[in-house]
Amino acid sequence: MHRLRKPYLVFLGDVALRSDAKTGFGLRDWCRDDVMGECALATAQVSLELPKMTPAEAAAAGAGSIVIGVAPVGGQLPPGWIPTLVAALEAGLDVVSGMHTRLERYRELVEAARASGAQLLNIRHCDRDWAVGTGIRRPGRRLLTVGTDCALGKKYTALAITRALKARGVKATFRATGQTGILIAGQGVAIDAVVSDFVAGAAESLSPANDADHWDVIEGQGALFHPAYAGVTLGLLHGSQPDAIVLCHDPSRETIEDHPHIRLPTLHEAIRRYIEAGSLTNPAIRCVGVAINSSTLSDAYWTRYRDRTRADLQLPVCDPLRGGVEPIVEALMA
Amino acid sequence: MHRLRKPYLVFLGDVALRSDAKTGFGLRDWCRDDVMGECALATAQVSLELPKMTPAEAAAAGAGSIVIGVAPVGGQLPPGWIPTLVAALEAGLDVVSGMHTRLERYRELVEAARASGAQLLNIRHCDRDWAVGTGIRRPGRRLLTVGTDCALGKKYTALAITRALKARGVKATFRATGQTGILIAGQGVAIDAVVSDFVAGAAESLSPANDADHWDVIEGQGALFHPAYAGVTLGLLHGSQPDAIVLCHDPSRETIEDHPHIRLPTLHEAIRRYIEAGSLTNPAIRCVGVAINSSTLSDAYWTRYRDRTRADLQLPVCDPLRGGVEPIVEALMA
Repeated sequence: MHRLRKPYLVFLGDVALRSDAKTGFGLRDWCRDDVMGECALATAQVSLELPKMTPAEAAAAGAGSIVIGVAPVGGQLPPGWIPTLVAALEAGLDVVSGMHTRLERYRELVEAARASGAQLLNIRHCDRDWAVGTGIRRPGRRLLTVGTDCALGKKYTALAITRALKARGVKATFRATGQTGILIAGQGVAIDAVVSDFVAGAAESLSPANDADHWDVIEGQGALFHPAYAGVTLGLLHGSQPDAIVLCHDPSRETIEDHPHIRLPTLHEAIRRYIEAGSLTNPAIRCVGVAINSSTLSDAYWTRYRDRTRADLQLPVCDPLRGGVEPIVEALMA
Repeated sequence: MHRLRKPYLVFLGDVALRSDAKTGFGLRDWCRDDVMGECALATAQVSLELPKMTPAEAAAAGAGSIVIGVAPVGGQLPPGWIPTLVAALEAGLDVVSGMHTRLERYRELVEAARASGAQLLNIRHCDRDWAVGTGIRRPGRRLLTVGTDCALGKKYTALAITRALKARGVKATFRATGQTGILIAGQGVAIDAVVSDFVAGAAESLSPANDADHWDVIEGQGALFHPAYAGVTLGLLHGSQPDAIVLCHDPSRETIEDHPHIRLPTLHEAIRRYIEAGSLTNPAIRCVGVAINSSTLSDAYWTRYRDRTRADLQLPVCDPLRGGVEPIVEALMA
């Protein structure tokens, strides 16, 4: 389990496009109180509109980590970024990276970390050993977001539901399974980086026994219908033992992204398959709603689509970005 | 992908029980021509009844590897085993281990390997990078053994079917996904040791494009109904894209082994679920038979059970160890 030291200083390197700073914007939007400020090179063209600070200033003000909040082109740290990260380590900040390339590849970072005692944290990787799954029920309640495909709003939906539960005074914790989620939560497991034998066990550890009226809201990964990642999804489902699932879907897609030969299931079929699979470790699993990524739909079309889908499935249908998740939370509490 | 140098010298350490030498017996029974001999310490109480050779003698006779053919108590190499393994490395033999503990933990082995250029191979681990699965069909035909649970004959069934196909002159290759299978085949992937994101991709690599009339017979792992390992099973199923599955079952079990709270599915239900899941990457998937591990059944009971199950499922039902797999191979070729 990764555990990160907050608050963060977000590093944007020489970012040119807003879309490359997705992680930085996600942190600003979902854990603003944990982000002390931003720092970037003089050539950067994007800002999060947060206070500008050097690593030394952030460390002096109590920051715990510098987070690489931008995806470098080609997945390698450009040489020009290294001095800022070295300065951060020298100031005592941990360096947190979501890149495939491990920070240990950069000798200057290893040496600076050794000298100061600060840590290099690769949250896309998962180096620790896990226990295998037990399938044994544990106290506390759990909701897992699942999808008809990857990358269509499972993290966002889980965050929105967690926020809505807390706003009602319900005890709730967002449980992160991907790199941006881990940065937001400050802890979590990059579940797709876990050795396959231990995925269900890691999911059990991520969401441990809790108060009977506490909800873990678990960020889903992949999809049961994805030719590459379905195994990750199934292990996460079995280990999470959810009482409730929320199905996430993007109606503009007819096939799995990047796999045009594989058609998406209907929403009916997707719900049936998740319930069937999840029943193995929680026979009481139920679907409490559908979260739609409606970004491609006009207002008029979205309203029609939502009403028709709600009538068809007899479930709440929401877009977390277009009206929020209250109907789903109502169904969950019912 | 692990690739091992045959022929093997099998090392039995100071083994006391036949059951601890399961790997050694498996090699003797399934790839006798690849096993040059055995060696053990003076205190060993079990023999494979193969020629006794020292590592130097085996190397001089052309052996490629010494295989640790016994599971050490506690999963650690006893100090008394090290000198034999060092002697093997000095003679130029690779050392092959199926233990969780990596051979690199033992300084003497690392030094001897470095000096001679021989290799330390940990087949329970999987250190290389894989591509993610594509879900795209490839030429050649594939059979995957699947199960209602773990450890009930999926490897044995795949080996028996491969042997039966070859005996008929059909082009066939056994594809190994677990450590004993890898030793027998001399290559393969420990699929449960692959990072979860890459399981389907590794399965695609394990069984690459082939002649249209060639059968890959792939060793299954885990079970879709296992609370810890179902994700491994699903990724292997999707990447293998089997045209045919054979369901393996042990009728003496009513619940998942070591998980008494999880009931096994019926055979009908198990077949339906494997077909449903496998259809994602091969819509033409079909079940060609059921392989029963009938070791707990009397002859009379087995005959009744077999006939009843065959009538019920309208599929061939065999025990590979009690009458062979011919009816399944017949159905496969039909």
